[in-house]
Amino acid sequence: MKKIISVLVENKFGALNRVATMFSGRGFNIHSISIGVTEDPEVSRMTIVTSGEANILDQVIKQLNRLIDIIKVIDLSAEHHVARELAMISVNYQKGIRSEIMNICEVFQGKVVDITIKSITIEVTGPPDKIDAIINMLTPYGIKDVARSGLVALKREEQIIIKPKKEVTIS
Amino acid sequence: MKKIISVLVENKFGALNRVATMFSGRGFNIHSISIGVTEDPEVSRMTIVTSGEANILDQVIKQLNRLIDIIKVIDLSAEHHVARELAMISVNYQKGIRSEIMNICEVFQGKVVDITIKSITIEVTGPPDKIDAIINMLTPYGIKDVARSGLVALKREEQIIIKPKKEVTIS
Repeated sequence: MKKIISVLVENKFGALNRVATMFSGRGFNIHSISIGVTEDPEVSRMTIVTSGEANILDQVIKQLNRLIDIIKVIDLSAEHHVARELAMISVNYQKGIRSEIMNICEVFQGKVVDITIKSITIEVTGPPDKIDAIINMLTPYGIKDVARSGLVALKREEQIIIKPKKEVTIS
Repeated sequence: MKKIISVLVENKFGALNRVATMFSGRGFNIHSISIGVTEDPEVSRMTIVTSGEANILDQVIKQLNRLIDIIKVIDLSAEHHVARELAMISVNYQKGIRSEIMNICEVFQGKVVDITIKSITIEVTGPPDKIDAIINMLTPYGIKDVARSGLVALKREEQIIIKPKKEVTIS
């Protein structure tokens, strides 16, 4: 089962190495990772997608929390979360099929970020299965290059359910 | 000077570790990294933003090219490229200012991906300076969380410049 781990880390030299070693040392493969700075320029957030045994992963999270430059580790897959991915897909095309590619782009709410007379580069965001779907749709046209960001995820705020004051009964 | 390195790598166990070690071993800090699978499920693309001396970086690229599970390494900063980033920004708000936040979101062509009565989560893509700009604009409202993908980049296809057949002179 895939797990999404969000790690807040101080921007110290070699921090990525220390985190990556912690996963590989326990036999966890990292399916995707994205690292970017947060609103605090001294702090970065890593979003890691991994899979493996739940109890060993709990140990990895505990050990990560003990590392000096780690601020917080959350298992997002155990919480409500919003997860998205960015992909750039470059597709070759011959004359006459550009409009077909543009239609697929539109359906997936993508943006054309580069175009030449031989290729088109599309940017698209969404959950990973949406990205897989557009890649599948574009494959028959000849994909030249794909760059995916890996998952970017945030904890979802608790939704406050407003209960009606009176029980509503339908008679 | 910041450098953007694109690495095509076979999905082998510990590949991230080997690449990260290559950079940290030469004293290069990784500013951002994004890793995602390509159209070939056996191959991933890493986009790494780093900085340091050009001649040492050239050595790192040469050494990376020698690693068995590395397919290709490109210094994208030396080529024409398209580079984008995905950010998710969660902002707290009090009553009455939601429309202000929504307006900022609209100007930056962001999408609202989550909303509760206390917070709003916006997804936005673009070059890193655009992401910095929206974060700056939202900071006064109280940012709760930020997750950025790090740079995702692809080589830009050579543009074929079509020259006019006759020299055009404006008289």
